Amino acid sequence: MKDKIIGIDLGGTSAKMAIISLTGEVLEKWSVSTNILEEGTHIVPNLIESLKERIELYKMKETDFLGIGMGSPGKVDADAKTVIGAYNLNWSTLQEIGKAFGEKFDIPFFIENDANIAALGEQWRGAGEGALDCITVTLGTGVGGGVVVNGQLVRGVNGAAGEIGHLTIDTEGHFDCTCGKKGCLETVASATGIMHLARKFAQEYVGDSEVKAQLDDGADVNSKDIFDAAKEGDYFALQVVDHFAHYLGLACSHLANTLNPSKIVLAGGVALAGDFLLNKVNEQFMGYCFPQIRNNETLVLAKLGNDAGIMGAAQLVKLQSVEG
Amino acid sequence: MKDKIIGIDLGGTSAKMAIISLTGEVLEKWSVSTNILEEGTHIVPNLIESLKERIELYKMKETDFLGIGMGSPGKVDADAKTVIGAYNLNWSTLQEIGKAFGEKFDIPFFIENDANIAALGEQWRGAGEGALDCITVTLGTGVGGGVVVNGQLVRGVNGAAGEIGHLTIDTEGHFDCTCGKKGCLETVASATGIMHLARKFAQEYVGDSEVKAQLDDGADVNSKDIFDAAKEGDYFALQVVDHFAHYLGLACSHLANTLNPSKIVLAGGVALAGDFLLNKVNEQFMGYCFPQIRNNETLVLAKLGNDAGIMGAAQLVKLQSVEG
Repeated sequence: MKDKIIGIDLGGTSAKMAIISLTGEVLEKWSVSTNILEEGTHIVPNLIESLKERIELYKMKETDFLGIGMGSPGKVDADAKTVIGAYNLNWSTLQEIGKAFGEKFDIPFFIENDANIAALGEQWRGAGEGALDCITVTLGTGVGGGVVVNGQLVRGVNGAAGEIGHLTIDTEGHFDCTCGKKGCLETVASATGIMHLARKFAQEYVGDSEVKAQLDDGADVNSKDIFDAAKEGDYFALQVVDHFAHYLGLACSHLANTLNPSKIVLAGGVALAGDFLLNKVNEQFMGYCFPQIRNNETLVLAKLGNDAGIMGAAQLVKLQSVEG
Repeated sequence: MKDKIIGIDLGGTSAKMAIISLTGEVLEKWSVSTNILEEGTHIVPNLIESLKERIELYKMKETDFLGIGMGSPGKVDADAKTVIGAYNLNWSTLQEIGKAFGEKFDIPFFIENDANIAALGEQWRGAGEGALDCITVTLGTGVGGGVVVNGQLVRGVNGAAGEIGHLTIDTEGHFDCTCGKKGCLETVASATGIMHLARKFAQEYVGDSEVKAQLDDGADVNSKDIFDAAKEGDYFALQVVDHFAHYLGLACSHLANTLNPSKIVLAGGVALAGDFLLNKVNEQFMGYCFPQIRNNETLVLAKLGNDAGIMGAAQLVKLQSVEG
C-alpha cells in the first residue's frame, strides 16, 4: 500500500530528507551533509545511498512509497527532471537527477525548484493550509517566490513564474540588482536590501542612533540588528523598516490585486522579525489593495520553518501523482 | 449529440448572442437590444425569448447544446449564478439569472463577469490561442483584466482576481481612482487616464501642439485624438503616450514576473491605437521584465474584437463541463 512519500530538500550545506504520510505527518526525518567537491558529483549518489540505508533501517519496502519529491536550487526542468546552474552546489553543467534516481529506485521521482517547493509546503500544511490560492514570498539573502493557484503550482511558460523578487518596485532604481535590472524588490526587501536601505539612510541621518553608529564604524551590522533596533524605537532603524515595509507591502498588493489569493505567506530568515514586521507590511499592503479584497488576514507569517522544503517535496509527489 | 454551445455577452446597450461549435466556429450570431427600464427586469426574459425563437428558427433541439455561457457586467457569483450591482443594466439588487434560465431551458447554464469572459475568449480562439497561461488587460473607460493559468480562469478567494486596473502603479498618486485609492493603473492607462495625463501635462507644456491647443480651448478631445497626434509626431502628445506606456509596461511586467504567461493580451478601445501603442508599451515592458522571461512576443494586441465575449462565454461552458 503506497501510504508514504519521501521528501528531499537539497541545500548548499545539507540535504534534509523525510518520510512523510499522505496526510502530511513526518514519520522519519534526517539530514546528510552536502559534499560539493568535484563539481558536486557526490551529491546525488550520497542522497541515494542514504535513502537506501534508511528504507532498510526502517524495514520499509519500495512499494510503500507513492513517490520521491525533491526541491533543488538552480534552474530545474520539472519535465526532464534535470537541474543546471546551481552554483552553491558546484553544478554548472546539466545534472540528470531523475535518471540517477530512476536507475536505483522503482519509485516515481519528481523535482521542482526550492522556492516553489517551499511554497507548496506552506500551502499544504503551513500558514496557507486550506487555501487553494496561496503565494509564498521568501525573504532571505534574496527574495524568492512561489505561486499556487487552484491548488496547483504555477510554473509559467519558461518555468519562471514566481520571480517576485524581481518585480520592479523601486521605480527610482536606487540599487542595482544581480539580475541586471535596477529597483527589483530584492534590492530593498531582502536581508541584503535592508542593508542597502540602511547605508543609504545612514548618509543622510543626523540624529542619535546606536545601530547607525555601529554601521558607520564598519561593525558587522545585519538586517536582524536593524529590526531589533527598530523594535526598541531607534528612529533611524524605524525609517529603514518603514521603507522596507512600503516596498514589500506594495509588491504584495500587486499579487493580491492580480490573483486575490486567500493567503500571502511571508517566509525566510527576514520574516523571523515576526509580528513587528508583519504589522508594518500589512499596514502598507492594506492601503494599496483594491477595497473589495482588503483583508487583515491575507498576509501571514510562515509556519513550517525549515520543514517547508520536505513538506513541499512530499506535496509535489501528491499533486503529480494525481495529474499523472 | 451535444456539439454546440450558446454564448451570450450582455452589455448595457445590447446583448450579443451566438451559437458556436465545440471547436470555436461561430455558426449563428445575432444581438438583442438591452432594455434597462423598470430596474432591468425585462433583460433576462428578452434574452430567453430571443434564444427560444432562434433555436426554433434554426431547427435545433435543446439536446444539441452542451450549455449556455454568459458574460455579465457587475459582481457575478459564478456558483450561485447570480449578479448584483450591474449599474449600467439598472441591476442594483440580486438577479437570479441561473434560476431564470433553468426554468425555461433544460441546458446547463454558466455565468462569469465580462472581463473574465473576454479573457477566456482571447485565450481560447484569439491572440492567446494555444497559450495555457494568458492574461488579458482591457483598456477602455477603465482598465479590466482576466487571468488564465494552466488553462483555467483564476477567480480568487473573493472572485476579485484580475483587478489589474487597480494595481497601484503611480506611487506618487497623482489622480484619485473611483475605487477610493490613488494611483491605480486605471487612473493613468485607461481612456480616462490618458486624458488625466494630457490635462496634467497641458498645464506645464509651453511648446506648439495642435491637440494641446484644442484641449486648452475646451474642445472634445479624447484618447484617440492624443494617440493620433502622437503618431504624427506631436511632441506634447508623445509625452503623454510615453508616460502612459511607462505605467502600462510596468504593470504588465509585474504580471509577467509573477506568472510568466506566454501571452499578455492588450484589448479594449484604447488598444485600437494598434502597433504604435504596442511597440511603445513593449519597450517599457522589456526593460522591467526579469531577463530570463524577456520575450518580444509576450505582449500582443487582442484579435477577437467584439466577439471576445461570445467566444469566452462558449469556452466557459467547455471548461465547466469538463470540471463538472
